[in-house]
Amino acid sequence: MDREKLRKYAEVIVKVGINVKEKDGVFISANTESLPLVREVVRACWKAGAKDVITDITDDDFILARYEEGHDYIFDYYPEIEIDYYESMMKNNYHDIYIGAPSIDLLKNVNQDYQRRSQEAEMKAMVRLDKYMNSGKLKWVGVGYPTAKWAKSVFPNLSEEEAVEALWEKIFDATRVNEEDPVKSWREHDANLKFYEKWLNDQNFEYLKYDGPGTDLTVYLADKHKWVGGSSETPDGDRYMANIPTEEIFTAPHAMKVDGTLKATKPFSRMGKIINNFSFVFKNGKVVEFKAEENPEILETFMDMDEGGCRLGEVAIVPHSSPISQTGILFKSTLFDENASCHFALGNSYAETIIGGENLSDEERKNLGANKSMIHIDFMVGGSELSIIGYKKDGSAVQIIKNGEWAI
Amino acid sequence: MDREKLRKYAEVIVKVGINVKEKDGVFISANTESLPLVREVVRACWKAGAKDVITDITDDDFILARYEEGHDYIFDYYPEIEIDYYESMMKNNYHDIYIGAPSIDLLKNVNQDYQRRSQEAEMKAMVRLDKYMNSGKLKWVGVGYPTAKWAKSVFPNLSEEEAVEALWEKIFDATRVNEEDPVKSWREHDANLKFYEKWLNDQNFEYLKYDGPGTDLTVYLADKHKWVGGSSETPDGDRYMANIPTEEIFTAPHAMKVDGTLKATKPFSRMGKIINNFSFVFKNGKVVEFKAEENPEILETFMDMDEGGCRLGEVAIVPHSSPISQTGILFKSTLFDENASCHFALGNSYAETIIGGENLSDEERKNLGANKSMIHIDFMVGGSELSIIGYKKDGSAVQIIKNGEWAI
Repeated sequence: MDREKLRKYAEVIVKVGINVKEKDGVFISANTESLPLVREVVRACWKAGAKDVITDITDDDFILARYEEGHDYIFDYYPEIEIDYYESMMKNNYHDIYIGAPSIDLLKNVNQDYQRRSQEAEMKAMVRLDKYMNSGKLKWVGVGYPTAKWAKSVFPNLSEEEAVEALWEKIFDATRVNEEDPVKSWREHDANLKFYEKWLNDQNFEYLKYDGPGTDLTVYLADKHKWVGGSSETPDGDRYMANIPTEEIFTAPHAMKVDGTLKATKPFSRMGKIINNFSFVFKNGKVVEFKAEENPEILETFMDMDEGGCRLGEVAIVPHSSPISQTGILFKSTLFDENASCHFALGNSYAETIIGGENLSDEERKNLGANKSMIHIDFMVGGSELSIIGYKKDGSAVQIIKNGEWAI
Repeated sequence: MDREKLRKYAEVIVKVGINVKEKDGVFISANTESLPLVREVVRACWKAGAKDVITDITDDDFILARYEEGHDYIFDYYPEIEIDYYESMMKNNYHDIYIGAPSIDLLKNVNQDYQRRSQEAEMKAMVRLDKYMNSGKLKWVGVGYPTAKWAKSVFPNLSEEEAVEALWEKIFDATRVNEEDPVKSWREHDANLKFYEKWLNDQNFEYLKYDGPGTDLTVYLADKHKWVGGSSETPDGDRYMANIPTEEIFTAPHAMKVDGTLKATKPFSRMGKIINNFSFVFKNGKVVEFKAEENPEILETFMDMDEGGCRLGEVAIVPHSSPISQTGILFKSTLFDENASCHFALGNSYAETIIGGENLSDEERKNLGANKSMIHIDFMVGGSELSIIGYKKDGSAVQIIKNGEWAI
């Protein structure tokens, strides 16, 4: 990999992503395969004046060894001291960089029950951290790194080396690293997202109507919902970009007021498995019917996790012509694919999608219609045939998306 | 590297080193270069029933980037939350595996003042952890891994690849991994060390007299000193081997009662530099004169760190014919070289080298003569010409070491 491009990518992550300021603490979570990028990111953080850069480097084999050799009792156990550590970082405003890749096939031969129990134990333990994540004080960013397995799953006909190079190029396209001045380009893109964010907030829609192949859905928005796109702002006025890439404008649906049918337009991948062609029927906000061509249990496990797992927590608008769509590939990674397509998420809503949500309790947000859950699972519903019409309280209607594109 | 040998080495580390039991927590600290070994060690820990295996993987470039890009203020700063994290691990009896290598030349072009300030800030912050380290409850082990740079510094005439292979072989010899049943061989070796440990404790020497080239030194032992060698035992009766390899029997000298001259017999390496041919004059336990052919400041920095930095905290006996000596090489690593040779350490004494020391305060140990310091720096004083005679309170004398070998 061209080190100069890695440097530019690291610069986007550190300057646009978490926008490191003098005396910021930084926590970087990554896999051994991404070390060449991590090195550049660490360097860029120190250069930007960080007081501390903590790196948490894991390895596929560490993860696998736990499942393959660990004794049965550990799968219901999540160490409290890890949560204490994360909590102390969050209390001290450490900002987070997640460098990741979908873990293709890694866990496919691993005991499913161990995975389910581990995931549940982890999510339960993590609940304690929600209030910090919701405080809006933490800057964070998630970015991708092409592992060999991921690249081969996207480009099965290329050699491993060629596939990694090809995926790098797609990632550099999607993250604007291939442009002359990536940081400047991100500033312009952010301004564009902010235009749509403002327009949607000005409309103050009561509900949205989705029409597309297999989709006929009415989605009310949460009371005091707020559309959010592009950069976020901490209470101190620091801007950050929580996902790179990001093309979406999203808000909180009303967890109790979603009705109709909904068909996903792209596959969903988790725990090393892919679900194709799946659809839902919603009634009073709740999933009352769920079908999938194969592996339905992958999503069902999440939906069964708690009361909010089978209700929507996010509605997001992305034009079908986004740069991620234009790469012409299915990344098989939510981080990228959700930015190629309008989408929803089952599960938790983001506090920032409610006006003043950072200062409300879970209960107060829930009373406004914002969903609460341990899970947050995105799935795609875009495509060139999608139409979204917004309805205001006075009954007037405005076409938002037509044939997959912004209609305004 | 032959994966089977790595597995055997990992088994020695996990079974003999920290002797992992069901429900133990484990903390592994290592560098990215040692990943092939870390993977085997992680696997062996889970297999042995660990409840949690935390890996802290650093990288030479992370360390370098901090010195090269970090802003000035960070070099006086050590993050308290890191100490909190270590403290919570220690409170919860996480046992420690340190996989390391001397960092040859890594920091040679880095601002020396930054290094000195960083080291001081770190050591001051770490003081809070002393009581856990001294409690005797934690099992820990330090082991070596041949990095390319380390191997080249030991075998400068071999290619990088050959040097790494050659150093692996020397490490496998020194750690008994090349023997048929390394774990069994370690049990036998431990019994042998325990024989000398008991003999030395039975003698209850008041002081030792060292004679060798450039050395003419009288070293009183601390009141209630205890000789320790081979495995240690936690209060719960769990055995562990804190260094692999280990060939030494060591105890606490009296910090106020060391007099005479002392000449090191092997080079000392720290912070990327080597000190050759250095010697001390002691008076009433304190270094009153220090000479080195080159780079004296490396050791002086440590000796100036605090009041105990210029007094002895450890005296250790190793026969000149130890397997580490027999490898015929200078490892340029304290972990190995100290086990080729009788040695001393400047700085802190180990609580376990005082009878009941784990339950005494720092002040109480100090009153018995045990030294207290932030530093602990080993240097070698062995060789084929060394004589050590032990003197008892009744005036009788016993030859302990003659011509570098056990005389008993």
